[in-house]
Amino acid sequence: MRLVTYRVDVEAEGRLGVLVDGLVIDVAKLGARAGVPLPSRMLDFIDLGPVAVAELKLLLDEAKGRWPVDGARPLASVKLLAPIPRPRKNVFGIGLNYIDHVAESAAALDTSADLPKKPVIFSKPPTSVIAPGEPIVHRADITQQLDWEIELGAIIGTTAQRVSREDALKHVFGYTTLIDMSARDCRRAGQWIYSKGQDSYCPMGPCIVTADEIPDPQTLDLWLTVNGVEKQRNNTSHMLFKVDELIADISQGITLEPGDIIATGTPEGVGAGRSPQEWVWPGDVIEGEVVGIGKLRHSIVAG
Amino acid sequence: MRLVTYRVDVEAEGRLGVLVDGLVIDVAKLGARAGVPLPSRMLDFIDLGPVAVAELKLLLDEAKGRWPVDGARPLASVKLLAPIPRPRKNVFGIGLNYIDHVAESAAALDTSADLPKKPVIFSKPPTSVIAPGEPIVHRADITQQLDWEIELGAIIGTTAQRVSREDALKHVFGYTTLIDMSARDCRRAGQWIYSKGQDSYCPMGPCIVTADEIPDPQTLDLWLTVNGVEKQRNNTSHMLFKVDELIADISQGITLEPGDIIATGTPEGVGAGRSPQEWVWPGDVIEGEVVGIGKLRHSIVAG
Repeated sequence: MRLVTYRVDVEAEGRLGVLVDGLVIDVAKLGARAGVPLPSRMLDFIDLGPVAVAELKLLLDEAKGRWPVDGARPLASVKLLAPIPRPRKNVFGIGLNYIDHVAESAAALDTSADLPKKPVIFSKPPTSVIAPGEPIVHRADITQQLDWEIELGAIIGTTAQRVSREDALKHVFGYTTLIDMSARDCRRAGQWIYSKGQDSYCPMGPCIVTADEIPDPQTLDLWLTVNGVEKQRNNTSHMLFKVDELIADISQGITLEPGDIIATGTPEGVGAGRSPQEWVWPGDVIEGEVVGIGKLRHSIVAG
Repeated sequence: MRLVTYRVDVEAEGRLGVLVDGLVIDVAKLGARAGVPLPSRMLDFIDLGPVAVAELKLLLDEAKGRWPVDGARPLASVKLLAPIPRPRKNVFGIGLNYIDHVAESAAALDTSADLPKKPVIFSKPPTSVIAPGEPIVHRADITQQLDWEIELGAIIGTTAQRVSREDALKHVFGYTTLIDMSARDCRRAGQWIYSKGQDSYCPMGPCIVTADEIPDPQTLDLWLTVNGVEKQRNNTSHMLFKVDELIADISQGITLEPGDIIATGTPEGVGAGRSPQEWVWPGDVIEGEVVGIGKLRHSIVAG
């Protein structure tokens, strides 16, 4: 299933929907028609665990294309928000997680050329998350080095505390596309939260594809363009630490909870690694996709 | 006022209380008696802004010691939780923010001896927060270098977006005592979230003292002992970047929201900076205090 958070009215908070044949089906309304209480918010749905996912699938099958009249709208007629508009903790980011990106980063930035022995973890606050299409803000007074990073996002479904690599993927709810915007000149004594955690630096969406449809997250193509020119193209098979290793590793010390998001790192092709270096500026347009999940398109605006 | 989150029953979620003469007065019940709806959770109270703080003060004055019979209990009879048991985003931590700590860190760890030119920001997930007295977990399979850091915590009261240093303190709700536990050997390519963000690594409390009672946060003594032996003693006047500068700086890129917490950095005297280096182990007891706010006491347990 492809789950979204959408709204019809500018005023309304986002509601949980599922994409079917170009329509957004409202999950709570579909449930209500069948007498099955299902939540109207993505995080509440994730909290219910695998039973709710299975139930929603059954309801979609049983509907056979007969949708609630007030609960099925053309995708083009609604506004999509980030699938999780407001995560409950900072998004976990993973740095230096594609081999060739380790090399380009070492050549251009202050990181080591040695492959990391353990996942390199940082975070992006909930306030950095923006909806598909929402502008990315360029604050010229604090950065002249705004860079792009296309990434696979993994969404945790059930609490993971010191789980083994073998069990780790059972804790995944689904996957999304993320862009990890990075102001390279806002690193502070090597710490990345200020360079990667500013408002609007975490475009996410357009949907969450549930984990049952992506049994192996290490087989996905991903790419990114700036103003239509390809900058990154790669495959998640080249990740240094795979999704299951990331979950197992983080959960040894930090409890992962339903709705937590892991941005799993970016492949080579970032602006900092180019010769000469390239940055994005107001007016530029970034497009990026994890193929099979969905595309993001974001303009850069002066802030 | 000295605000706490407390519970009477093991099952109950924490409730907002205010400390008066050794009693915990339940804020919602005090309000209800006077026909003034006040929330039962700390974050909901902070969200209401300065009007709620002023109203609660009036109610306390008017009560003149006549408390609601079911809403006033001896402090010793209740269990205190962290004042904000579950922050809405990661706690912001500030590294290298006392001059002599910059030196001891450079001598012992991988940080520069130069004073930072801008605040060094990292984060601690909400899952790292524990209640006063709750044990700190030592995970011997991932750290042999568990260290202490006593810190002043500043709690944001109203949304701060690109505020000036002059206006910054107006956005503070209050202050608390924090211990920033740090597993020095869990740093990853210089990133600190895994070394500082593990479950139980953020003891916080016992109360929040509202900002009106601490007009100048740069005048506070703070100290920490391990097994009764003093390791840190200092004053917040020695901070490199003061609380107002921290808020102004972070808010240039990251919106600070009501209930956000900034752990403002630790002075010299950490275990990593000692010769020979010292770490804490199961059975050890850490006590620490920001004088005028309150004391924390935590045992280390094997996890």
